[in-house]
Amino acid sequence: MTQTAPTPATPIGSADLVGRRYRDPDLTSLAHRTPTIDQQLAHRSVREFLDAPVTDAQLTSIVAAAQSASTSSNLQAWSVIAVRDADRRSRLAALAGDQRFLRCAPLVLVWLADLGRAARLAAEHRTQLGATDYLETTILGFVDASLAAQNAALAAESLGLGTVFVGAFRNRPAEVAAELGLPDHVFATFGLAVGVPDPAESAGIKPRLPQEVVLHRETYDPARDSAIADYDVRLRGYNTEHGRDADWTTPVLARLADRHSLKGRDQLRRHLEERGLPSR
Amino acid sequence: MTQTAPTPATPIGSADLVGRRYRDPDLTSLAHRTPTIDQQLAHRSVREFLDAPVTDAQLTSIVAAAQSASTSSNLQAWSVIAVRDADRRSRLAALAGDQRFLRCAPLVLVWLADLGRAARLAAEHRTQLGATDYLETTILGFVDASLAAQNAALAAESLGLGTVFVGAFRNRPAEVAAELGLPDHVFATFGLAVGVPDPAESAGIKPRLPQEVVLHRETYDPARDSAIADYDVRLRGYNTEHGRDADWTTPVLARLADRHSLKGRDQLRRHLEERGLPSR
Repeated sequence: MTQTAPTPATPIGSADLVGRRYRDPDLTSLAHRTPTIDQQLAHRSVREFLDAPVTDAQLTSIVAAAQSASTSSNLQAWSVIAVRDADRRSRLAALAGDQRFLRCAPLVLVWLADLGRAARLAAEHRTQLGATDYLETTILGFVDASLAAQNAALAAESLGLGTVFVGAFRNRPAEVAAELGLPDHVFATFGLAVGVPDPAESAGIKPRLPQEVVLHRETYDPARDSAIADYDVRLRGYNTEHGRDADWTTPVLARLADRHSLKGRDQLRRHLEERGLPSR
Repeated sequence: MTQTAPTPATPIGSADLVGRRYRDPDLTSLAHRTPTIDQQLAHRSVREFLDAPVTDAQLTSIVAAAQSASTSSNLQAWSVIAVRDADRRSRLAALAGDQRFLRCAPLVLVWLADLGRAARLAAEHRTQLGATDYLETTILGFVDASLAAQNAALAAESLGLGTVFVGAFRNRPAEVAAELGLPDHVFATFGLAVGVPDPAESAGIKPRLPQEVVLHRETYDPARDSAIADYDVRLRGYNTEHGRDADWTTPVLARLADRHSLKGRDQLRRHLEERGLPSR
């Protein structure tokens, strides 16, 4: 009983997707396009949602997409919690920078780096699981969760839904863990708010750095940074259209200036240790 | 000049994709399917490649897909190095567990957590960039690289190519960094081998854990582990078909047993510190 997905608010397949993604006169089209690549190019973060549900059947498809992503050694070192309860979403919003969309989106997916499943298996089999003490394993959990979540976000978009990632779940990890009942060796990496996009939101396809800046050949070439100046102009143009006054460089330097700009996340290592992932 | 992608070796859109992904009698179809979700469900890791190129035009599409993924605060804290040179691929293979496919795949993409770009901007603007000292920022780079790489892998698959992730680039990070000329604050997170799949490879769509194991509702429920026993049977069935004798639990417990099972990656934190990412 396959249903046709609703038409997305952003029409995809447009010849101008590449133009909007880069605003780069040197890259205005792609020789190779597929429906999947067009879906990816059309991505934008959605922070305004209609009062409309995300169904359990849609969630099943989204999670199937997530589980189809690669996972290191098939460890599947991640889980996801689907939060629908409005009071819980409101409490999570308060813990994650008070971002309004966490209260408005009907579904918040919390992606977990989950070494707890393996730890419980080890306990059941009366064997040790020493690797969970190391940063490698913590990062493996974060990477697994990220690969899964990116597939989930794209699958949701292909169903006509909108999403936005929420890194601020790492601001206050202890309270987030308590709210979600997380056991040892399980850590909330980030959230993904999901809902039907409000077409009235002023947001578009955000231009990214020129390809030549991020794509190196054979070895790393710092001289590629020289194209960042062009990008500052392009992103300022996009931001101006959406009522903001900013280039790229200034907010990047502010965001990474010092520990205070991390909004509590400078304590991440201690929080991981308290969750059973000492990350040494 | 949009070209039609070649037909993938694994036919997608098959009604049986869900059956192959789960082998779960309780989840045999999805109510919501899209071409993107079908592409995701059809994923398999490819480790045997034909002697056929991946073109620069294909690479441009793959990187455009990668850049279209979400990125924390638009920091775009990642880069990618496209390695085609056979000698370099051979040397990288020797550093990454001597996996043969790194020598056979015509293209190896090395995904970098890249805080170096921001650090160089800060130097140019004569300002400090203190946040790069913290584990939060290291992990942000790994997450950004992972979101981008997952989009890249899926885009490549939609073009009829095959891919496999290579975590073993973290076994010997100092040598990998030297080979790739990585500057400070840049770390090779993992590789992605890309090429035209050899249809003779014995591999299929690997079954994943039942959805009920990884998908929690409102709060985390460890009792969901009880369905792992069924999965052990299903994965053993899949492995038997491909000439391997293994369930899920046994290799998971071996892979995470102790620091020796990490093959050098227990030193990851020290290596990050040496690359300018002390991760405290």
